[in-house]
Formats: sequence, structure tokens, C-alpha cells
Amino acid sequence: MLKAVYQQRGPVPQDVIEAVECQLPAPAAGEVLLKVLAAPINPSDVLTLTGEYGMLPPLPATGGSEGVGRVEELGEGVSNLKAGQTVLLPPGNGTWVSHMLAKASKLVALPDADPQQLSMLTVNPPTALLLLKNFVDLQPGDWVIQNAANSGVGSYLIQLAKARGLKTVNIVRRESAVADVQAIGGDVVLVDGPDLHKQVKAATAGAAIRLGIDAVGGASTENMANCLSEGAVLVNYGLMSGKPCQMPASALIFREIDLRGFWLLKWYRNATPAEQMAVFGELIGLIASGKLKTKIAATYDVSEIKQAVAAAAGGERGGKILIVPA
Amino acid sequence: MLKAVYQQRGPVPQDVIEAVECQLPAPAAGEVLLKVLAAPINPSDVLTLTGEYGMLPPLPATGGSEGVGRVEELGEGVSNLKAGQTVLLPPGNGTWVSHMLAKASKLVALPDADPQQLSMLTVNPPTALLLLKNFVDLQPGDWVIQNAANSGVGSYLIQLAKARGLKTVNIVRRESAVADVQAIGGDVVLVDGPDLHKQVKAATAGAAIRLGIDAVGGASTENMANCLSEGAVLVNYGLMSGKPCQMPASALIFREIDLRGFWLLKWYRNATPAEQMAVFGELIGLIASGKLKTKIAATYDVSEIKQAVAAAAGGERGGKILIVPA
Repeated sequence: MLKAVYQQRGPVPQDVIEAVECQLPAPAAGEVLLKVLAAPINPSDVLTLTGEYGMLPPLPATGGSEGVGRVEELGEGVSNLKAGQTVLLPPGNGTWVSHMLAKASKLVALPDADPQQLSMLTVNPPTALLLLKNFVDLQPGDWVIQNAANSGVGSYLIQLAKARGLKTVNIVRRESAVADVQAIGGDVVLVDGPDLHKQVKAATAGAAIRLGIDAVGGASTENMANCLSEGAVLVNYGLMSGKPCQMPASALIFREIDLRGFWLLKWYRNATPAEQMAVFGELIGLIASGKLKTKIAATYDVSEIKQAVAAAAGGERGGKILIVPA
Repeated sequence: MLKAVYQQRGPVPQDVIEAVECQLPAPAAGEVLLKVLAAPINPSDVLTLTGEYGMLPPLPATGGSEGVGRVEELGEGVSNLKAGQTVLLPPGNGTWVSHMLAKASKLVALPDADPQQLSMLTVNPPTALLLLKNFVDLQPGDWVIQNAANSGVGSYLIQLAKARGLKTVNIVRRESAVADVQAIGGDVVLVDGPDLHKQVKAATAGAAIRLGIDAVGGASTENMANCLSEGAVLVNYGLMSGKPCQMPASALIFREIDLRGFWLLKWYRNATPAEQMAVFGELIGLIASGKLKTKIAATYDVSEIKQAVAAAAGGERGGKILIVPA
């Protein structure tokens, strides 16, 4: 088997990670051997390699935090799974591998659908869903504004908002990303800038926008704050600009806009199993039926981990990067 | 009589305001003639002159938004007040005057105490009290951190926190302000900077700080955010640096710190008369008994309004600037 490991963290993520050969023992009692079918590289995985993420595993570590696999071999006493079943990989670190052993009782069986789309189930789609649901009580017809609209979370958010009857204002950082976001179904797509609030006002006929979703920080937070209505909530969930969120005191004070943060890992820590399964259930159904998907820019074998991480860490790309072991 | 009026707003506040002579008619039925005893120049008054405040009166306008006066003459049918009674001036614009007419039924009678301290009742002390009470449920022994600790609000906040058994970390922007803030009773007083969180940790033995109060913005907001414990609330109520609040995405996301704003004017709009009187009652008692006070840097006659506003708008001073008509 192959696994992508790192001994230390550093500013250039592809420099610290490498693919190494290793051997797995046969599955013990209660375990199964999984062949990994697909595992994405999320922004949080890149930040884990650079050391900028909010929780860092002890070193050395294996990269990757989600994915799906197929049951290859059953250990003694395993009765809840069959060979060939697609399952969610156990969440946490270490999914950029060709094979892994896992406790059968901890695995969630998945429907027989596109494993690449299902491999992205546990990070981006719940982030998008919880950002839409947990901060402001929105009603059909309401508007929501987000930046990084061409990101993974961004594309899921557009589709989930549409399914709820919400309308989206989508902000991107370059003109070349506009058409893609329109194709996903973004109602309004605009390029970021200091006059954003004027463009948004014109495009929405001055509608109130009570929820803003920011993954960029820096001046983009301020541009978004200027588009929001009095008493709105602006939620930041990402560090893309690498700059602190810039929030005009006048928006905080005179228009009572509340700047909050969202971290999926914290939600996972605090949500009950029933709450988690409700979220997964909704998302698995949508993904399996093809109603919720995101674009895949490229797939790489574990042996190509350095190229894969470089592609994911680089700025411009047209979709997610996946590890798809050969 | 003299009044301080402005015909337009502009970046140099002392340039737009001037003292003019005028005549008042005798008080009509239900009115009283008041001699103004004292009226402060608050930061919000300066921002109203420059046009940066969240609510601006139509022009031309008279400066000043709070103060106290003494009843000089009673109009027909006034029975709730006597000549010589000290009263709160009607809130709103136009208190930088030597005399004014007011509806007797709208006036709040004040105890016979220092009119200069009482003149600052309605803006800074309720701001400090509501910042302490309305965002986080603090218990005796808890810590709170504030910057601009040598401001009017800052000094009230130290005293009100102490009365509630809370401990304060106080941040100032220059070493020369430290002794003053210690003299008011600040438990810890530090100079702002990027290593603030280390200094605070050392000074508080690493105690959790769940409420941060920011009147500065810019990098000061970030420095304060780094001192707060997980799940804390950081409330901004002032624009002193003129820069947007800088909030690290990591503090928002990984430590779930909530950045909110507070505007007293909005509280006044939404609070019931009973809620307002409860706040005033508590504060009047403390001020009249000398338990709550702030330092006065200088007093000026209405005729000296330009010097007074220049002194209030300037950076370094050792207390509030008051208009005390001759």
C-alpha cells in the first residue's frame, strides 16, 4: 500500500508531504480492509500541512481527513458489512492512502453512487448547510451573500440555498470565475471590490440581506459588511486571503452587524450523533441522486501526492482536487 | 444668551462651529427657562460635527447632546418644578448653550449634587454599564478587558466593574496614561501592542477573559481578540483609530469569538421608559454620592466653543472637556 505522510509542517505544503510504501497486516477481528476510492484535498488539509489550522495532529502524520472506500476483506466476526460495500472512511486524519484498516462498527455504509462526489460528503457540504441554517432564520425568497463562491463550499451553498428557495449573491475575485458560478445556479454573480455594495444594491433591487458568508477575510469582509442590512450576521469560516477580517466599526455600531465564526470541527464535537446523522442523511440523499455535486478539477494517485497538494494549494483552479488511488 | 451653532459639517470640527448671540422669548405655558450649568463634549459630538456619526441632525444645528441646567423661570401652569431645581437637559442636540426653554413635563429632576459630574450622566456611564451587563453574564471574580481605558467610558467602566466585583484589564496607547488608570482603580494596566496577549496572560495568571470592550478598532481589536478566551464576546463601541476593526479569522473560527457592536442611541430607541429609568436611577445614585465620577480636564464658556472643541478633538488630554456657561 501507499500512504502520504509528513514528518514536519512547513510553509510550502507539497515540500513536507511524500508518498511512502508500507505493509498492512490482515484485518483483525472486528476490522475490515478498505481500498480507498477517493479522498479530497480540502483547504483545511493544506492548512494542516502548513501548521495554520486550528487543530494539528501529532507528527509524523498521514494527510487527508475524509473520503470513501470499498470493503475488500472482512476480519473475524464482521457481519454488518459485505465485501464490495462502499463506506465513508472514518473521519480524522489519514485518508490519503491506497488502503486502510478500520473498525467495522464505526463505518457508515453509503449507497451505490458516484464515489468521487460521495468522498467529499463530510467537510464542504455540511459546512455549507450549517452556515445556511445555524445563524439566521431565513425564509424562502430571502437573499444570502457569499464570497469565494467558486470554492467547494461556495458551489454547495448555491445548490443548497436554491433547494430552500433562497436567492444567492455570489462574489468571486476574478472575472474569469463568473461564468462557472452562474452555471451552478448563482442568482447574482459579481467581482469583489470596494463598490460591491452599489453593484449588489442594483442587482437585488435593494433587497435586505441578513446573512453574509465570508471565506476570504481582509477587505472582502468589509466589502460584504457594506452589503448587509441592519442587524445582519456575517459569518467567517475561511482564511483564504491570509489577512484578518476587516470590519468597519460603523457597520458594527450603527448597523449592529454581528461578525461570527464557524468551525465545522467544533460542530462535530458538540453535535449529538442524531444531529450528525440528520445532516448526513439529507446530504447523502442529495449527492446520491445527483442533485448536489461539485466540480472536480483533477484526480491524482497517492504516488502523485506532491503534485496534487501543489495543485490544491495553488490559487486558480476549476474545482476540487481528489486523491483517487490507482 | 449664547449658543454654539454650525451651518455645515467638516473635517476640522472647531472650524465649523461658532458661538452666536440670540434672544429667547419668555417661557410659554408649560415651559421653563433653564440656565445651563454644564454640558460635556463627547466623542460622538465631535463625530457629529465632522459628519462621521451614525445619526446627523439637519443643518443648521446647535452642538451638544447632554447636560444639566437649573430652573430660572417658570411658564404658566408649571407645578412639577421650582426655581433653582437642577434638572437633566432634554436629550438630543443643542446643549452647548447658555440658556434654553424646555417643556417642564419632560424634565428629570436631579439631586443637589455636583452639576459637572451629573452633566455627563446620559452618554458615557450608561454606555459603560450596558457594555458590562448586556453581552456576557459575568460573575464576581470574572475578568473583563477594555482599551481606551483612560477615556470617559473607560474610567466609568473601571468603577462600575469594581462595584460588581469584576476585575479589569485596561489597555492604553501610551505609557504616560498608565498611572491615571491605576489611580481610578484599574486592576491591570498595560500599553497596547502585538504582544499584549502575553502581557495579559502573565498579569492575570492566565485567567479566562470572556468580555472584551473595544473603542479603538484597527490592530487594537486584533490584539484584544488574542487575549480573549474561547467563546468570548468582543464588543466595539468606538471609532478612535478611524480604522476598521481587524479580527483574525482564526479567533473567529477556531476560538469562536463573536465581534459585535454597541450603540447607545439604539438602546435608547428600543429600551422602555422603565428600563431607561432603572439605568438612570442606578447611575444618578452613584454619581450623586461621589462613587462614580470622571476626571475633568478643562471647562470653557460657550463663547470659547472653538477652543473647547479643539481640545476635545485633540488626542492627549487628562479628562473630559465641559462647556460651563459663565
